[in-house]
Amino acid sequence: MASDSKTDEELARERLIDLAAEFYDQFDDGEIPTMTLPTRTKSNIEYDEDSNVWVYGDRTSTRSANSVRGARKLLKAAYTIEFLARQLEEDRSSTLRELYYLSESWDAEEAHFSDQDESNQLIEDLEIVSEVTREDFHMRPEESGATLMGPLELREQTRRGEREIHCQKDVGEGGYQIPNNPDTIEFLDHDIDFVMCVETGGMRDRLIENGFDDDYNALIVHLKGQPARATRRITKRLRNELDLPVVVFTDGDPWSYRIFGSVAYGSIKSAHLSEYLATPDARFVGIQPQDIVDYDLPTDPLSDSDINALESELEDPRFMSDYWTEQIELQLDIGKKAEQQALAARGLDFVTDEYLPTRLDEMGVI
Amino acid sequence: MASDSKTDEELARERLIDLAAEFYDQFDDGEIPTMTLPTRTKSNIEYDEDSNVWVYGDRTSTRSANSVRGARKLLKAAYTIEFLARQLEEDRSSTLRELYYLSESWDAEEAHFSDQDESNQLIEDLEIVSEVTREDFHMRPEESGATLMGPLELREQTRRGEREIHCQKDVGEGGYQIPNNPDTIEFLDHDIDFVMCVETGGMRDRLIENGFDDDYNALIVHLKGQPARATRRITKRLRNELDLPVVVFTDGDPWSYRIFGSVAYGSIKSAHLSEYLATPDARFVGIQPQDIVDYDLPTDPLSDSDINALESELEDPRFMSDYWTEQIELQLDIGKKAEQQALAARGLDFVTDEYLPTRLDEMGVI
Repeated sequence: MASDSKTDEELARERLIDLAAEFYDQFDDGEIPTMTLPTRTKSNIEYDEDSNVWVYGDRTSTRSANSVRGARKLLKAAYTIEFLARQLEEDRSSTLRELYYLSESWDAEEAHFSDQDESNQLIEDLEIVSEVTREDFHMRPEESGATLMGPLELREQTRRGEREIHCQKDVGEGGYQIPNNPDTIEFLDHDIDFVMCVETGGMRDRLIENGFDDDYNALIVHLKGQPARATRRITKRLRNELDLPVVVFTDGDPWSYRIFGSVAYGSIKSAHLSEYLATPDARFVGIQPQDIVDYDLPTDPLSDSDINALESELEDPRFMSDYWTEQIELQLDIGKKAEQQALAARGLDFVTDEYLPTRLDEMGVI
Repeated sequence: MASDSKTDEELARERLIDLAAEFYDQFDDGEIPTMTLPTRTKSNIEYDEDSNVWVYGDRTSTRSANSVRGARKLLKAAYTIEFLARQLEEDRSSTLRELYYLSESWDAEEAHFSDQDESNQLIEDLEIVSEVTREDFHMRPEESGATLMGPLELREQTRRGEREIHCQKDVGEGGYQIPNNPDTIEFLDHDIDFVMCVETGGMRDRLIENGFDDDYNALIVHLKGQPARATRRITKRLRNELDLPVVVFTDGDPWSYRIFGSVAYGSIKSAHLSEYLATPDARFVGIQPQDIVDYDLPTDPLSDSDINALESELEDPRFMSDYWTEQIELQLDIGKKAEQQALAARGLDFVTDEYLPTRLDEMGVI
């Protein structure tokens, strides 16, 4: 999201100050200041044919200073913009949680956030109206901690200088730790045939121990459950900049399908960032309900909340394909779910000797 | 836990086979096979004056094949021993979850585990009777993922050869990822004055951004909430092998005191491993109830479960010191708790410019 002539920081700072200037101009013209945002509900997300991801529709909501509640929201926005602009000027960064606590030190008591949901939401609002990502505001999440392992050499720009790291030769068995803002990374060289995102740490370790990354020139991205933005962002960059196929390997349950969905199509919460975070041609190699039948995998019964989640996926625009409809209906029919590590019931090497090679071959990835 | 002449793997394998041989001999002598374990409840953990950690007391429980239930348990133990012995012979490893699923492939249906709690528990039982750690059985946990950052150079023995890594110069901002078995690490060189274990990712990132590791020659260990065994193990090794002071920086609530307690004194669940995992002279630099009063930090009210947890800590042998009694009683009195990031209410640099230097100076660490 950077222009060619300015740094990401300069651009982000400028956009924020433009927003504050807009409030100023509205006051100056004798108008009541307002801020207009797309409505952030499921009914207002649409499939964008050009970019192949889900984006907000045309419906908007307006925050106006014509009520005490609305005026307070805009006051908080103005204080937050000032804090972010200063943070960028000083080349510093902070966490979303620190922002919430920091507001306690602001002189206008009306500007203090009442809880962290409020400050998180405001940062998302500012991302939407300024078209700058949180990462470019230098706002960090609490935890990220996902890792890469595979034939990739990269350069990371850290506060302490550049680091050149090969994600097999220069790291321990734990792999390369993805930084909070992966746009500080430049891809130098690689020997990757495809990128495989893996849901659980146990399976990630299995693939590494079995040498799957080496044997298939795969870059293993550990998702750690629902992936952090940094993990989704680097996956997208690997797809786009290195022109690599991306596959997503998860458990076979509705929550894991959502993990795949958020990698591929983005989420409702971050539909404004789909173009930055989503990898629309990522493909699913997770456990399919059909695998439960074909391989007679150890299973658990579907709980009521699993069934509700599957039924809501049947209505979810991201899962409205023949493949997903068939698999989800089969799963509701058999009433079972299975984890990726359930493949171990056929031996520790089944996943790398049989399961993945068969699936990836059928899909034309290998 | 290794002897000088044998590798950890050889020793672990031998101990396991000794156990199975014991069952064989019991059968051979016409006895009903049994396995005797220390009773694993709070009332059976005691302070060991020699090692300064909490260990099991004298009470024991016996698993005997004189009931169907007991016989099934010993059958499962025999199958698991066979699996582990083969795994060690082949220099492979697996996760606790894989073991649970793998049991489905065993020919005796009576030996299949009914849930993962059962297989996890059996591995702990085997650790206790064999006096070999799970890591030396090559059993991995699901997720670990904690990191180190600071002036430490180490050598990690990976399946793909040795890696020499400096935990500031050779890593990105995410730091060095601790492997599942940190005993594959050798410390080569360092410039560390003290080790600081930090509960949250947000605070870990704050300390790194503010250059605290550089300014104070501190090795920052990210605990990620309740620390994994790998994190506690490497902390203990840093203390013992490099003779370094260890401090633990957490939130100011009863759950965080337990995090400190598990680093320093071990946990009931792993009291058999205290000598391997616990760092008894680790000291607490987390948010104290007194800090909430002195610095007027933003707080949340104590919930009912917080109050219960604090009251149970007053009875916990690990917290029976004047310091902890005073702080916990103060906290119950003020009815409040605070997070480490609440220090941001006094500015982003307060923690590194004021709070930690003052606390560490008072404690004689710097």
